[in-house]
Amino acid sequence: MLGRVLNTHQQWLCRRLADLGYVVTRQVAVPDTANDIQSAVREALSRADLVVVTGGLGPTSDDITRDLIAQLLGKKLRLDDAVLEHIKKRFAARKLAMPKINEVQALVPEGALVLANPNGTAPGLAMKIEVGNCKPGVGECKSPSASAKWLVMLPGPPRELRPMFDDLVVPLIRREFSLAAGFVCRTLRTSGIAESLVQEKIQEPLAPLVAAGLEVGYCARVGQVDVRLSARVAGAEKMVGDAEALVRKIFAAQIYGFDDEEMETAVVRLLTEKQKTLALAESCTGGNLAHRITNVPGASAVFLGGWVVYSNESKQKFIGVRAETLAAHGAVSEPVSREMAEGARSQLGADFAIAVTGIAGPGGGTPEKPVGTVFMALAGASGTVVERRRNSYERETFKQLTVQQALEMLRKQLVSA
Amino acid sequence: MLGRVLNTHQQWLCRRLADLGYVVTRQVAVPDTANDIQSAVREALSRADLVVVTGGLGPTSDDITRDLIAQLLGKKLRLDDAVLEHIKKRFAARKLAMPKINEVQALVPEGALVLANPNGTAPGLAMKIEVGNCKPGVGECKSPSASAKWLVMLPGPPRELRPMFDDLVVPLIRREFSLAAGFVCRTLRTSGIAESLVQEKIQEPLAPLVAAGLEVGYCARVGQVDVRLSARVAGAEKMVGDAEALVRKIFAAQIYGFDDEEMETAVVRLLTEKQKTLALAESCTGGNLAHRITNVPGASAVFLGGWVVYSNESKQKFIGVRAETLAAHGAVSEPVSREMAEGARSQLGADFAIAVTGIAGPGGGTPEKPVGTVFMALAGASGTVVERRRNSYERETFKQLTVQQALEMLRKQLVSA
Repeated sequence: MLGRVLNTHQQWLCRRLADLGYVVTRQVAVPDTANDIQSAVREALSRADLVVVTGGLGPTSDDITRDLIAQLLGKKLRLDDAVLEHIKKRFAARKLAMPKINEVQALVPEGALVLANPNGTAPGLAMKIEVGNCKPGVGECKSPSASAKWLVMLPGPPRELRPMFDDLVVPLIRREFSLAAGFVCRTLRTSGIAESLVQEKIQEPLAPLVAAGLEVGYCARVGQVDVRLSARVAGAEKMVGDAEALVRKIFAAQIYGFDDEEMETAVVRLLTEKQKTLALAESCTGGNLAHRITNVPGASAVFLGGWVVYSNESKQKFIGVRAETLAAHGAVSEPVSREMAEGARSQLGADFAIAVTGIAGPGGGTPEKPVGTVFMALAGASGTVVERRRNSYERETFKQLTVQQALEMLRKQLVSA
Repeated sequence: MLGRVLNTHQQWLCRRLADLGYVVTRQVAVPDTANDIQSAVREALSRADLVVVTGGLGPTSDDITRDLIAQLLGKKLRLDDAVLEHIKKRFAARKLAMPKINEVQALVPEGALVLANPNGTAPGLAMKIEVGNCKPGVGECKSPSASAKWLVMLPGPPRELRPMFDDLVVPLIRREFSLAAGFVCRTLRTSGIAESLVQEKIQEPLAPLVAAGLEVGYCARVGQVDVRLSARVAGAEKMVGDAEALVRKIFAAQIYGFDDEEMETAVVRLLTEKQKTLALAESCTGGNLAHRITNVPGASAVFLGGWVVYSNESKQKFIGVRAETLAAHGAVSEPVSREMAEGARSQLGADFAIAVTGIAGPGGGTPEKPVGTVFMALAGASGTVVERRRNSYERETFKQLTVQQALEMLRKQLVSA
């Protein structure tokens, strides 16, 4: 609540639960104070059958969640020897003695299931709350299929929380909360179309399916709009399939991926399928294009390498941009982007090369080439194409959008080839 | 609530409000349904004096927040001609006609202040809710200094929300909700110490100040721990200053920055101060090191350029790693990292060069060099130092942590030089 940390749990957990067909009704963040934590948990238990609590299981004095929830539910804490042993071993593996304050992480509320944490010290905890035993104010179960509510506490660090959720909590949820109807969900990811235009184009064709129970959601992000199609009615599979066919027909190649697939994943997949290699020459994106490509496991099979050529000298020396071209047109220009791409392609012997040169700002703009101006060149066996864009955003969004557009140039060429 | 979007508003708004001295008591996210939105806003108004609502002001059918809040507060919506004109102009500037569905964005609840949006179509809206006029269930004002509650609606896209908040909402908050006591807050950012150790080392020395009202918070992230010192009592300035001096004395050079300063910002600042230049040769970090450095405005003055050398061929051809070194030790080795750094430094004529080579995984590990093994070399005028680490995390965390450690190597050398 002090804005020190970005909450990535909400997106991650909601995505997992939504794709399993469960409806998340609320996400709440509160400060680390007894009253806030207890009232948030009490209210959540009155609204939902499953409550997932994250964080506050660490060793420091502001980690008080375990204590407060045990108190709220009227449970005593006991020292769990196996957990204590696990924590000591983790410190010993790093040749350290366990600091005394880490001992609290081995405290477990009576009756709680211990969720083992192979990636950290604090275990997760899962507590079954029988409906009859709900404390006053905690409320009745909402789901007809559920015999009890569950409260799950997970450690805050994402690399501890995520495997614990997938390995231990998902099976528990599936077992305890079976879904009555089938649930089907499909996301189509589009690039280069405005959100309102996406809706305008598909609203009417999808209307009959929406009347029959199809749910349609839109999500606009930098350079892309996602369309989410879902249904939880009888025949959901066919309904979502029909809707997908309609949307694919309308947007065709503007759909770059499905569900979780990112643009860079689609590009690496296409390069791999077509056995083509890629080189990069980046100026204004400063390595972000290479970073995005190399986030994809297996990228090393198709990505040969790249340059971050910030200075004119490095553009000349390493990828053969000519001094005359720089002098005549400036570093941010169509001819320079072209020579960068062609130079990178020939230096690395790649099938394709992308080059980007532009003005990320805040400084460096001119009336002819204002901040946000960018030239993107794609060199391939059949020649070089260049696009000029004006991405008038602050520095980080500028880089992100420019990378998205450059990847889209390559993707379109790979799809059409 | 479907996990499609990462909520960055929470962190950004909490940070702004916390640093102004306001206490954020809760953050709530709900699905786009009438009942969820109205109950969340009703509950928030019963808890707090200021409620900030984000998103749901767009043109598509799931954007229903404006309507529902007007209804909740018993206000009619009117079409605002000036807003409609603004929206039409924005489309005209892109040579497009305004789609009919964008018209709803010009609807304004009676009595609401319109917050102009120079960066998008939907304006923000601020509504004053006199305490006497609070609807049943909306509750009484909590702050003794406030004569009314305020409800502020902001558009969802960060690049629209952020300037609107800074330019229009912050002045409104300062005017309507004056703070009784002074508020001082300072964050010290440390690198390379475990969270529990950070607390162990400073807890006792800070105890007398904590007894007098100092608040201490810890925030652990990949490779770093922040210590936040704040006070809202008389003499807060001196109290936080004394606490800072104590913590600085204990951690000395392990403190890399203050408040919002990121490691890459500290490194670019130090390079600029000392008039030193930097070159990079990245293998396993795949451009992320260059990306982080080039996120800092002004980086171009000290960052000369870099290579992303994924293949053995490119390591040899571009930065002069010797074939014999690769054959004898493998690409992920101390000697190769050393030759990469020295080659990059001499190719670009830089004062410093950082090179990174390692196994990001998921594939590529061996018993001697398991996934997560990384060698980081720093070459400078006085020689080359190499560190070996084992960063056993999934691919993206591996890259993030490795970049953090590599930057820290350079920072330490710059500070001690």
